[in-house]
Amino acid sequence: MRVTTTRTHATLIAALLLPSFFGAVCLAADVPLPSWNDTAPKKAIVAFVARVTKPGSPDFVPVPERIAVFDNDGTLWAEQPMYVQARFALDRVKALAPQHPEWKTKEPFASILRGDAKGAAAAGQQGAMELIAATHAGMTTDEFQRIVSEWIATARHPITGRLYTRMVYQPMLELLAYLRANGFKTFIVSGGGIDFMRPWAERVYGIPPEQVVGSSLQLKFEERGSVPALIRLPDINLIDDKEGKPVGIERHIGRRPIAAFGNSDGDQQMLEWTTAGGGARFALLVHHDDAGREWAYDRQSSIGRLDKAWDEAVARGWTIVSMKDDWKKIFPK
Amino acid sequence: MRVTTTRTHATLIAALLLPSFFGAVCLAADVPLPSWNDTAPKKAIVAFVARVTKPGSPDFVPVPERIAVFDNDGTLWAEQPMYVQARFALDRVKALAPQHPEWKTKEPFASILRGDAKGAAAAGQQGAMELIAATHAGMTTDEFQRIVSEWIATARHPITGRLYTRMVYQPMLELLAYLRANGFKTFIVSGGGIDFMRPWAERVYGIPPEQVVGSSLQLKFEERGSVPALIRLPDINLIDDKEGKPVGIERHIGRRPIAAFGNSDGDQQMLEWTTAGGGARFALLVHHDDAGREWAYDRQSSIGRLDKAWDEAVARGWTIVSMKDDWKKIFPK
Repeated sequence: MRVTTTRTHATLIAALLLPSFFGAVCLAADVPLPSWNDTAPKKAIVAFVARVTKPGSPDFVPVPERIAVFDNDGTLWAEQPMYVQARFALDRVKALAPQHPEWKTKEPFASILRGDAKGAAAAGQQGAMELIAATHAGMTTDEFQRIVSEWIATARHPITGRLYTRMVYQPMLELLAYLRANGFKTFIVSGGGIDFMRPWAERVYGIPPEQVVGSSLQLKFEERGSVPALIRLPDINLIDDKEGKPVGIERHIGRRPIAAFGNSDGDQQMLEWTTAGGGARFALLVHHDDAGREWAYDRQSSIGRLDKAWDEAVARGWTIVSMKDDWKKIFPK
Repeated sequence: MRVTTTRTHATLIAALLLPSFFGAVCLAADVPLPSWNDTAPKKAIVAFVARVTKPGSPDFVPVPERIAVFDNDGTLWAEQPMYVQARFALDRVKALAPQHPEWKTKEPFASILRGDAKGAAAAGQQGAMELIAATHAGMTTDEFQRIVSEWIATARHPITGRLYTRMVYQPMLELLAYLRANGFKTFIVSGGGIDFMRPWAERVYGIPPEQVVGSSLQLKFEERGSVPALIRLPDINLIDDKEGKPVGIERHIGRRPIAAFGNSDGDQQMLEWTTAGGGARFALLVHHDDAGREWAYDRQSSIGRLDKAWDEAVARGWTIVSMKDDWKKIFPK
């Protein structure tokens, strides 16, 4: 009897002390990447993570250097039929129009208010800067954050009727969580506006503001009365797209990522920069080939064009995800 | 006998299960801020941390929002008799001079090579930009990182003979560790060059590159052969000093810190920006008043002038540290 009691306790103590006891429990409850089919991309991701996280492996990477960067539009959430931030800008023009009667005859506003996308686009680069100045600048950083937060709380996709924050890709949410569970620090590196993403990226992706890199405007510090404020100026600070992505990475992160995830030619230089480092590297492109569950577009698309980056991915053996074949589901429930 | 055995095991199990058991052990071994005297600044720091970390407290701040920002020169390490980065630039001029015979007659290089600080300073803003261009630009980011790493590994302070990386303030190292142990994310926000600090900030301060904010040059992405590179251009991207510090904070961190630590007028706007947020806030200035163990300077100093920020600190009740009275020791052993 005494022996039995002692052995029972010994077993219990051993269980409490053995991390593998809990480890096994956690593992069983947490199969990685459940929305990914068991095809080549998932296998490549899991194999890469195993290589860089296994102590003693020649490809082992210490936790602080496990930096993974993700494009946003078309990689983490849908970008068709229009970038979400473009929709935000158009909605702002409509909301602000009563205070701007002159917009009825001024481009690109007149076309936007008539719903004439072609006319608005005809205003070109100058028109785009006017649009940014009117909708993204001239207020404090706190005010812009509130405007974005209020808009994103109710804005819905014109075709699916879903909140935009539910137009995110479930397999990518799982990938972000899987990498973080393996010691990675996950960053967004997007051509979109840094201050457009930060108000909701933590809630939606689990990525805090300081890990969001994007295009930005110049800011000016000033005292309004005795209250300090940062004013958003209508001048570009950084276009965080194409050649700008490695620049944004260096400015914000200061070391080279070991894994990069994108979907278009705008991500090509980011993937080149990532894979040119020493040691194990991982690069992945999401291919939008699922017209049934999402959209199908690549070389000819004006939004999210995947042409040169596709050729480079094929030539260099980067992983390409077929949304149709490699993902069990696209959006969260 | 059986009862005794069971109780022994029960005690052991209880001990294993009770976090407070380990908590108490850790606490006893880890008294916070041992190099700080038990004076007002230490009490203010400990009281602030208690307020923002106690669950249910009206001043409780969730972990992701516990952002603390630190100036570097004069706050984390010594800045007398010359900013360390200025010494680096002068050493680079000497190292590069054999490749630049024209510097013998060109300012500010001629004066620097003669050891004439006054003559070099006479070249003004234009001279400073020439110096930056010659010593900090024109190479890749990887090359500059290597140059800084090699220099900082052996460069010594002209008066103490210590490595510069041992001219850091022991009480501030303890403060960084104490804040991190309480869930804070610690950032450097310095007027110094971001790429001058990043190569050693992780080793010396435990602050990773992505949490270093500083002044920066423009970068350009290009393919050198088939190898992508980021080239450092001789054009300023951000002067992260005075009004530039809140700008640097917003660009890099994207949310307002709740605690800020500085030592000079260059930190005034950072402390204003930090304390203007809602909820509990903490601002601290290090006062260099210890001519015996370090240097004594404030309102009249050309380096690290503490004048307007001192008046504001007094008016607003910010914490002021007397290095003489509040710190048991200045430098690590």
